[in-house]
Amino acid sequence: MKLITSARNEQLKHVSKLLSHGKARRAHGQTVLEGVHLLQACLQAGVRPIQVYVPEHKRCAGEAGALLAKLPEHCVTPVAAGVLSRISGLAQAEEVLTLIDIPAPPARPRQGDCVVLDCVQDPGNVGTIMRSAAAAGVQKLVLGQGCADAWAPKVLRAGMGAHFLLDVSECVDLAQWCAGYGGSIWATALSATNGRNLYDTDLTRPAAWVFGNEGGGVSAGLLARATGCVNIPMAGATESLNVAMAATICLFEQMRQRL
Amino acid sequence: MKLITSARNEQLKHVSKLLSHGKARRAHGQTVLEGVHLLQACLQAGVRPIQVYVPEHKRCAGEAGALLAKLPEHCVTPVAAGVLSRISGLAQAEEVLTLIDIPAPPARPRQGDCVVLDCVQDPGNVGTIMRSAAAAGVQKLVLGQGCADAWAPKVLRAGMGAHFLLDVSECVDLAQWCAGYGGSIWATALSATNGRNLYDTDLTRPAAWVFGNEGGGVSAGLLARATGCVNIPMAGATESLNVAMAATICLFEQMRQRL
Repeated sequence: MKLITSARNEQLKHVSKLLSHGKARRAHGQTVLEGVHLLQACLQAGVRPIQVYVPEHKRCAGEAGALLAKLPEHCVTPVAAGVLSRISGLAQAEEVLTLIDIPAPPARPRQGDCVVLDCVQDPGNVGTIMRSAAAAGVQKLVLGQGCADAWAPKVLRAGMGAHFLLDVSECVDLAQWCAGYGGSIWATALSATNGRNLYDTDLTRPAAWVFGNEGGGVSAGLLARATGCVNIPMAGATESLNVAMAATICLFEQMRQRL
Repeated sequence: MKLITSARNEQLKHVSKLLSHGKARRAHGQTVLEGVHLLQACLQAGVRPIQVYVPEHKRCAGEAGALLAKLPEHCVTPVAAGVLSRISGLAQAEEVLTLIDIPAPPARPRQGDCVVLDCVQDPGNVGTIMRSAAAAGVQKLVLGQGCADAWAPKVLRAGMGAHFLLDVSECVDLAQWCAGYGGSIWATALSATNGRNLYDTDLTRPAAWVFGNEGGGVSAGLLARATGCVNIPMAGATESLNVAMAATICLFEQMRQRL
């Protein structure tokens, strides 16, 4: 267990690249989890880290120490104080960084409940929707081209561990995928004037929910393939909801109808 | 209408201070709106800007140009290209910055629907909850001490104009406020194991919803003063929802029950 003392260490340079470049993540099939909470979620899901980099003073202390004690010694690398915060986006606290293989993509779902994202670009939105999907009992996530990268650090942070509860398919041709999907497909309208009222829609059967781009909503091609377009009734002067909020409302209404 | 050509201009130094320091906003009773969308929301609500700073090339063009044409000439100051992006957090696009007086706080509500925030610290969460409250028809917002500053730039951005649809009271002593409030007070549990099921709770009468700190939830003192504690049923392995998502689900369930 050799102490790393510089951000120019070859291993940390690799970690740093994975944190900032989607291309590097795809080329290596790896990503980096920032913080103890994501390490915990990954271990709980049975995913084995390739390597955990931990600030030396946290090696045996607190939450991090308790988790690291369960790992084989060759999987844990201590790093001198101040070095990890130079490469991580979590500037305030110096946190553990966990290198993992990105889980192999599952077979693309052809039935059952799914959440489908069509050009949802904001990493915070993608992560929040993943967290909501997991909390509302939907396990399959299908991301079309043009979405934020599901395994990017910001998406992982917003997902708060939901990544390890979901089957994630990325870069899917959504029009083609819709044609092969066996359940209802609900597209969501950004405004309350199009489509049918969410609360009058029977959501008790398996369905795919399609949530669209922050500015433009669900693309016309997918709207045409959907079983229907659903809107969320809203109060007076408000035009629209953030896509993550809209997704949360729809997925929890589905859950409520099935309770 | 004199062109400003430097970020060291006295007016822009003032704007820059308001953008970055809550103390300056409180001392002057002013804040700054970033972007055309917030300027539009503010004008729609009948709030008169003190001054709008606009990149010279956008002065007469596009959305910004159309809005600025409605304002008296002395309220609009053109700024040389590249200068405003040096002081604004919106680094990607060079946007209009609008200086306004923070609306005078209303009398603190003693009845009717309210959203109450107890140490909600993340600006994005406070803004998102404001947007959801407005969309769900709740107009009164009460922020306790320890919350993110409602008129901070990040909160304004996440609120997407909801600030101008709400009555916002800040720095309120919440324990004292609860004692004087006439309706039901619902505290929300962060996990699904405490309190009563949201969907089994009658939400048809006026109520105050209390949402708590991201890590710690609603403080014990407020829980003791609440009519009841409400939880949101969730799927299996998920422990909790982001506070903004939880607030959205509660407020839209209230709206649904009243449709």
